[in-house]
Amino acid sequence: MQPRFAVIGLDHRHVYELTQYLIEAGMECAGYWPVTSDAGVLEGFRKRFPTLTEVADKQLLLDDPTINVVAIAAIPSERADIAVAAMRHGKDVLVDKPGLTTFEQLAAVRAAVAETGRIFSVCFSERFQTPSTVRALEMVREGAIGRVIQTVGLGPHRLNRKLRPDWFWDAKYYGGILVDIASHQIDQFLAFANVEDAEIAYAAVAERAVQPGFQDFGEIVVKSKDASGYIRVDWFTPDGLPTWGDGRLTVLGTEGTIELRKYVDIAGKPGTDHLFLVDGKGTRHIPCEGGKMDYFQKFTADVINRTETAMTQAHCLNVCRLALEAQRLATQR
Amino acid sequence: MQPRFAVIGLDHRHVYELTQYLIEAGMECAGYWPVTSDAGVLEGFRKRFPTLTEVADKQLLLDDPTINVVAIAAIPSERADIAVAAMRHGKDVLVDKPGLTTFEQLAAVRAAVAETGRIFSVCFSERFQTPSTVRALEMVREGAIGRVIQTVGLGPHRLNRKLRPDWFWDAKYYGGILVDIASHQIDQFLAFANVEDAEIAYAAVAERAVQPGFQDFGEIVVKSKDASGYIRVDWFTPDGLPTWGDGRLTVLGTEGTIELRKYVDIAGKPGTDHLFLVDGKGTRHIPCEGGKMDYFQKFTADVINRTETAMTQAHCLNVCRLALEAQRLATQR
Repeated sequence: MQPRFAVIGLDHRHVYELTQYLIEAGMECAGYWPVTSDAGVLEGFRKRFPTLTEVADKQLLLDDPTINVVAIAAIPSERADIAVAAMRHGKDVLVDKPGLTTFEQLAAVRAAVAETGRIFSVCFSERFQTPSTVRALEMVREGAIGRVIQTVGLGPHRLNRKLRPDWFWDAKYYGGILVDIASHQIDQFLAFANVEDAEIAYAAVAERAVQPGFQDFGEIVVKSKDASGYIRVDWFTPDGLPTWGDGRLTVLGTEGTIELRKYVDIAGKPGTDHLFLVDGKGTRHIPCEGGKMDYFQKFTADVINRTETAMTQAHCLNVCRLALEAQRLATQR
Repeated sequence: MQPRFAVIGLDHRHVYELTQYLIEAGMECAGYWPVTSDAGVLEGFRKRFPTLTEVADKQLLLDDPTINVVAIAAIPSERADIAVAAMRHGKDVLVDKPGLTTFEQLAAVRAAVAETGRIFSVCFSERFQTPSTVRALEMVREGAIGRVIQTVGLGPHRLNRKLRPDWFWDAKYYGGILVDIASHQIDQFLAFANVEDAEIAYAAVAERAVQPGFQDFGEIVVKSKDASGYIRVDWFTPDGLPTWGDGRLTVLGTEGTIELRKYVDIAGKPGTDHLFLVDGKGTRHIPCEGGKMDYFQKFTADVINRTETAMTQAHCLNVCRLALEAQRLATQR
């Protein structure tokens, strides 16, 4: 079978990638609901995908039994409702991060997953869409640096103040900075530490400079039995950086370290996806740009085969829960 | 006047640098006490400084009124006692880090400083002895990256298992990993955030792999009103790294970032002391190897002029206190 997907929720530009990669993975796009809080996103979508079908009533998409998957990049606080509706209509879900923004939504998603047997998959793009991260995880699983002791994930983001819709500025909609963007690094900690769950040892958020009421800095210490992870996210990418953020991941092992410079090697090597390995033998730069990324292929296979090869459902929901717990802990502080 | 110094405490190799840099800064070495827990350190000292005078009774050095300064690199837990004795004999103190290992020692040092007016200076070498850090601090003070929001200090160290004396393995002597090596990064946080004091928001230590009872991993979150710092220290430098540790400092500002690769740029540029600046204009590599380092010159001037230009006494003692607080918090956990 060739699975078919619909797009409901065109509020964030990430919808372009979700759509593009699903098509490249072999799915057919059955149509999209052209309603948005951000006219620029819709305009860009139409420009990129001029042949796709607009469906004015999203219920038609939900009711269509030939549609297997709903892809969602709505306002973060509205994603879970769409996801639950999709699952209740028999569809698997691929959602931009964050997949949800409250504990209530998490409970509703968990219940829908349990009762329908559908897949709720959050696309943690900072792992799945960066070949250096995919390669690093393979190397770590193969034992390249011994046992993983710690990860440091730095996720600076460009503010792009003028491009942002109103909901970007209100934590009620984006869920707080840890929910919104630190879920990436939580996902990476669980993956590299090779554990299904963890606990939040420390979390903080701050409003340092952007504007009152807007969390522009956040940090987390996450722990498993044998490893810990430090996570920092912020909206302070300097204007002079040639990309949206200098995303880094450092993995400390008992026998070596791996450092990823995912999107840029500042004042260094050209291109993206730089993997630096230090082990017992020496130091090596391993270029990973253009390398394997198979999340969308695996997700497509999972839709067909009812498997969970792209990411286990438990992992995905644990990341969501840990992000919520970190945000709660930080906000109570 | 040309100040004269004595060396008491030759248990750590850092004594070589303390001695060398004091001589280069213009002080005269009046002699050293050739007693050590580590015969290799003494042997190396004699090889490096064959013309210096050995004084078998350290009391003779303390009692000598022509000696102005005592330099100390004893077993960490014994440094404060020597420092207090030196101050009580009218001498200023230059001590390898950590300067002390318990709250009782801190109180005794504070009292001696207050009552004698002498200087107790801990040589935080990862700042004072790396020109990239000296330069970065100048640039930050000049406003190169706006207001400092956060620092990340990573301090991996090579274990060198076979070179270590017995006291290296027992926290009773080294004070715990946060006291022993994280005091560097606490010092750097205070310096870059431009605050005299801070508080410990989180701290943890772990025994991950080296041997039972030995803290091989530690981390701290330190906070001031307007900034925070994450610190990680460990003993897991891989054998293939061409130096003892890939020490990094990242300074996040409202208008830019600075990253220091102090001792090596892995699989990258040759040499040490690499400063990477990202600001509104672009990305730049600023080589700092061989650049200015003036701690020892300033310390020497402070000894002569009774000033505190190298480091304020309050800063130094606050770093010691914060390291002790972090260690206590982590150990209670």
